[in-house]
Amino acid sequence: MLISMEERGKCPADAGFVAVNYITCLPHYAERFEMLFASRARMIETMQGFLGMQVLRAEAENEPYLVVSYWQNKQSFEAWVGSPEFLEGHKRGFEDLRRAKEAGEQPPMQSRFVTYSVIAR
Amino acid sequence: MLISMEERGKCPADAGFVAVNYITCLPHYAERFEMLFASRARMIETMQGFLGMQVLRAEAENEPYLVVSYWQNKQSFEAWVGSPEFLEGHKRGFEDLRRAKEAGEQPPMQSRFVTYSVIAR
Repeated sequence: MLISMEERGKCPADAGFVAVNYITCLPHYAERFEMLFASRARMIETMQGFLGMQVLRAEAENEPYLVVSYWQNKQSFEAWVGSPEFLEGHKRGFEDLRRAKEAGEQPPMQSRFVTYSVIAR
Repeated sequence: MLISMEERGKCPADAGFVAVNYITCLPHYAERFEMLFASRARMIETMQGFLGMQVLRAEAENEPYLVVSYWQNKQSFEAWVGSPEFLEGHKRGFEDLRRAKEAGEQPPMQSRFVTYSVIAR
């Protein structure tokens, strides 16, 4: 059965562009990191071309979390990264990083960002 | 608008479990790797609990491809890995690896497999 994108609503299966943030937390920060996403601001939902997101926790230890967002195309993703909603949506995490820096501490999380195009489904 | 999973059909947004195969190809093999997935056997579609897959090519160089599959739960993924369909679906890729080995060549691709649970959406 094939149904249109409008009928089924937003689905990551329709993404042409995927952004993955590989995030490594200090051990004491993992619980807060998970809480931040469990209670996230959902600002990203308002963006045109946004098709979904997932936070993935590896079963193996010493593997980064993956924060994955699915987009219609690269342009819709770039509009998000440059938006006031992006800053608002990351407020608590950015604040944690700022506080650690001011206190001369190690950052509680480190991220590596990779963007992808979907070449097969 | 909320619609049920039956109404919209299979969607990765409903996944509880995600498997990622990080694949590094030798330069000469990348085109064939992409072709194998563009013309894949689609055996995986027959598996219960399968919610979609994507092959992701990084925009940056020297980043692995990601072959991502989305599952209702870990059990549905494990049933796939242990199935005859899995062997059938990977036949051409496994054959390429076998031939390289017999010829005493470097494997044309190397993979690192990581499994994840979805902790936020």
